Amino acid sequence: MMAVPSARAAETRERILSAAAEEFAERGYAGTSIGSIAERAGIGKGLVQYHFKAKVDLAVTLVQATFAQAPFANVVTTDPPPRGIAAIVASIRAVSRAFRDTVRVRAAVRLVREYDIIPVVFPTPYVGWMAVMAQCLRDATDDGDIPPGLDFETEGWHLVATFTGVQETSHRLTQRQDLPERIEEMLQRQLRLFGVVDPERFLRQGSNQAPIS
Amino acid sequence: MMAVPSARAAETRERILSAAAEEFAERGYAGTSIGSIAERAGIGKGLVQYHFKAKVDLAVTLVQATFAQAPFANVVTTDPPPRGIAAIVASIRAVSRAFRDTVRVRAAVRLVREYDIIPVVFPTPYVGWMAVMAQCLRDATDDGDIPPGLDFETEGWHLVATFTGVQETSHRLTQRQDLPERIEEMLQRQLRLFGVVDPERFLRQGSNQAPIS
Repeated sequence: MMAVPSARAAETRERILSAAAEEFAERGYAGTSIGSIAERAGIGKGLVQYHFKAKVDLAVTLVQATFAQAPFANVVTTDPPPRGIAAIVASIRAVSRAFRDTVRVRAAVRLVREYDIIPVVFPTPYVGWMAVMAQCLRDATDDGDIPPGLDFETEGWHLVATFTGVQETSHRLTQRQDLPERIEEMLQRQLRLFGVVDPERFLRQGSNQAPIS
Repeated sequence: MMAVPSARAAETRERILSAAAEEFAERGYAGTSIGSIAERAGIGKGLVQYHFKAKVDLAVTLVQATFAQAPFANVVTTDPPPRGIAAIVASIRAVSRAFRDTVRVRAAVRLVREYDIIPVVFPTPYVGWMAVMAQCLRDATDDGDIPPGLDFETEGWHLVATFTGVQETSHRLTQRQDLPERIEEMLQRQLRLFGVVDPERFLRQGSNQAPIS
């Protein structure tokens, strides 16, 4: 019998992906199996395998979906889009919110970190975001918001590396409960390092707003 | 037949630990087995199991040995010991050298990161080091090397989190080839953030020296 794509099938597929995301986020790639995903989704193992042949296919689907999507693709959805320092603040807040609130993002990030035990090539993390941050710093310099003389590539590297460490440390010590305040502390320090004139004007709008969705 | 502890047995044990460290560092806990360790050590599986009953025992031994040892135990071996900003610079350089040069340290750090798939309780990372860094900042303030007003605990948290991100990012993008220069860039930025008076006097001795061994 041929499968007929249907709303029901799409719904089952989403249910499997949600269960897989929870499993991968909590237990990692090695700790997850088609069986544990089926159990969490409350469906049979055969139905999972009808939609996704193997565990690795679920991992790839989750990673691709996350990295194709704002804020990871650095898609800006406000009009006008933020620029310079405002764009850096919006991007870092949006990514940290996504880590904290979205289990599919947490799963994807963990899977990418576990790349060396997963038999597939994932996109290289960090480098795209570093380039975008470097460009924002260049724009901020052009706009007169920071003094000239910054090495944009080096600062972009350290900005992304620092974010990575803040989210990893908050994850390990508080399951990301303190991530929003740690991100604000980090932004204050970074803006000070860049020599931003009057940094508060970029920070006072509050971390619960969503300039990038 | 009773086993007689001997130099030969101790040598075999060290050979097994070295092979296990290489396996864990390269392939993680899930990717390593008693069989792959035996193969790498060039000895029989039975002999590995004579010394270490299970994979988890090897993991625990490696983690305990690393965290009992300078620089992770924050044991200072110079006389007089460094203090304040000099101690921060020495500690961060020593830990980053250990990451880069010592496979047993890389194995231990990876195992601690993979704590949620290993059936044993590891020591909580970061917090001891954060407390030591906070104390160093307090000493530096007392000594007049940084202006008063710093929140020592918050700065200690961010210093360790930033180091974590720098080493993880360097690991992922260059297999830690650029770690020494990234650490120096990071130290320059951190000392600037703390408001250190004349930061170069703490940095110019060069990153290839070993104030903490």
